[in-house]
Amino acid sequence: MQTLNVNLGERSYPIYIGAGLLGKQDLLGKHVKGSQVLIVTNETVAPLYLVKTQKMLTDFQVETLILPDGEEYKNLATLNKIYSKLLEIKFNRNCTLAALGGGVIGDITGFGAASYQRGVNFMQIPTTLLAQVDSSVGGKTGVNHELGKNMIGAFHQPQCVLIDTNTLATLDERQFAAGLAEIIKYGLINDADFFSYLATNMDLLLAKDRAVIASAVQTSCHNKAQVVALDEKESGIRALLNLGHTFAHAIESGMGYGKWLHGEAVASGMLMAADLSVKMGWLKENEFTQIKDLITRANLPVRGPGMEVEKYLKIMALDKKSANGIIRLILLKAIGQATVVSEYSNNLLRETLKEFG
Amino acid sequence: MQTLNVNLGERSYPIYIGAGLLGKQDLLGKHVKGSQVLIVTNETVAPLYLVKTQKMLTDFQVETLILPDGEEYKNLATLNKIYSKLLEIKFNRNCTLAALGGGVIGDITGFGAASYQRGVNFMQIPTTLLAQVDSSVGGKTGVNHELGKNMIGAFHQPQCVLIDTNTLATLDERQFAAGLAEIIKYGLINDADFFSYLATNMDLLLAKDRAVIASAVQTSCHNKAQVVALDEKESGIRALLNLGHTFAHAIESGMGYGKWLHGEAVASGMLMAADLSVKMGWLKENEFTQIKDLITRANLPVRGPGMEVEKYLKIMALDKKSANGIIRLILLKAIGQATVVSEYSNNLLRETLKEFG
Repeated sequence: MQTLNVNLGERSYPIYIGAGLLGKQDLLGKHVKGSQVLIVTNETVAPLYLVKTQKMLTDFQVETLILPDGEEYKNLATLNKIYSKLLEIKFNRNCTLAALGGGVIGDITGFGAASYQRGVNFMQIPTTLLAQVDSSVGGKTGVNHELGKNMIGAFHQPQCVLIDTNTLATLDERQFAAGLAEIIKYGLINDADFFSYLATNMDLLLAKDRAVIASAVQTSCHNKAQVVALDEKESGIRALLNLGHTFAHAIESGMGYGKWLHGEAVASGMLMAADLSVKMGWLKENEFTQIKDLITRANLPVRGPGMEVEKYLKIMALDKKSANGIIRLILLKAIGQATVVSEYSNNLLRETLKEFG
Repeated sequence: MQTLNVNLGERSYPIYIGAGLLGKQDLLGKHVKGSQVLIVTNETVAPLYLVKTQKMLTDFQVETLILPDGEEYKNLATLNKIYSKLLEIKFNRNCTLAALGGGVIGDITGFGAASYQRGVNFMQIPTTLLAQVDSSVGGKTGVNHELGKNMIGAFHQPQCVLIDTNTLATLDERQFAAGLAEIIKYGLINDADFFSYLATNMDLLLAKDRAVIASAVQTSCHNKAQVVALDEKESGIRALLNLGHTFAHAIESGMGYGKWLHGEAVASGMLMAADLSVKMGWLKENEFTQIKDLITRANLPVRGPGMEVEKYLKIMALDKKSANGIIRLILLKAIGQATVVSEYSNNLLRETLKEFG
């Protein structure tokens, strides 16, 4: 087992990474403050890992809530199911929530924890690759609004993150590929060595080689933890983690939540960012090709769904990074060198959206 | 104009108190970070004070949202109207919300600000006595759930609180009396001198004498600011501000939100706390009589609605202060000396609920 630490003063917490951690005693219990634990999971994950998780918490009153599976349920109505459950079982403000599942479960459970009785503790137990390398770390929680993705939420750090890489064995290929998008993202943002490592080892990664998976998950979590420690509430550098996401959120919201997986939308969004970066004269053509090749090898889309340019622009204007009507984008100066940009050519952006959107 | 300060480090903010502050230039504008302000108010307050408030913000893009009036609208559905409005008008995370109204508007707008795009700024402009002396100060925000009052929310401090005591002129008598309950509360908790002042000056207060109102509002805000500064997130002493509230929330939730005004429920709840304190042998009979007399003179109920004892106990068990199934109560050792108690006789509690519930 590898333990990383997210350094945030009194809100610091460990990330446990290892194969076979689910079911191990003494890992979760020490992070439970009170006597009550509600495990929130979904109907896909529950049959696979709920019992193992319950077994880690035998010292406590453990209740469970099983939600439907899918991004289309990441909304206020589903959130209210968490509140209702907590109140029905009379959980108090010393209770702890445990999010067992992918990014949707983690985000919605985290926001439930942030807002139930004005804030209770929670733990992240991510079971998808995407949640393990990205959404479970850093305290971003929330739900979608029909007018925009992740528009309602809170920064609320968990007490711990427990990553059992064995759960990836049950993950379908489409979900696994979606997670690879966020892994590739860390290489593009500020870690050219990691990008090279991924290019060299993509076949082993796809074959779910244990050593390569462990390394990829650890490096991703390490990168994320570093950025979060520097800028917990995204007033600066943390925005870089949004590479490809402004485009991706437009796809997810515009096509209807759940049609495109978040990681798929991020993959094509990163290609759009890369293409615009080439058009701006920053990224070299051969770097663009390397990115496109790696994303293709990861079984991810290199183009969006063909959504209209105007629709992209309309939704992107609502992005949380926007200010004074200007869409801020994360673009690439090179592989491993992302930057936040508010000044770019609107015509070039339109061209990118037309070609890759 | 009197300025009090709520000392919370980087989250500190001023409370401006005075007659005729609404409409004054330069008070609100300096607390607006970005260029966008959404004033959230209700259909009762809007015709009276919306234009005056807009005039204080002419340097900004000011939008308004007018909600229905009443505690029964303090829920997730109404909260979602705030999110939808913010997204429709494309407000970004540098926007500021302004809560113009009573406690319901302040609480729901504050939670909207806490959770829109994971947190934006807001300002409190309370127009009821209750909001001016209590709910607008201290950063408690939230909405009700059908199973419990204020069960969903966040601690989110405003950038400033602007109290124009002239707004009390338009407040109906029932709402005015409701505010007096929270004022009397401060005397009971830790300020016996203030209790005496109120006993001496209740007639002038009811006649809305300017000097007495100014003094009562200032002393109340001062008391609240002191407690909040010591214990922002209610891990200790702040719980004392809940004197009477465990009973009150049971009445509000049990009778249906909006039937009893919050202050009315608090008044009868304080009497229940006082009665139980007498039964416990702590509070003297003559102190109980003084409290009952003052509450009566303030045109407030000294008994609950006659709700069943079991119903009280069932709802009270869900109180946020409860732990391990034990209802924690704020009781009185004397006038001006409240204390948090988890050990008390259940039989005596039942007797109190039977007599005063």
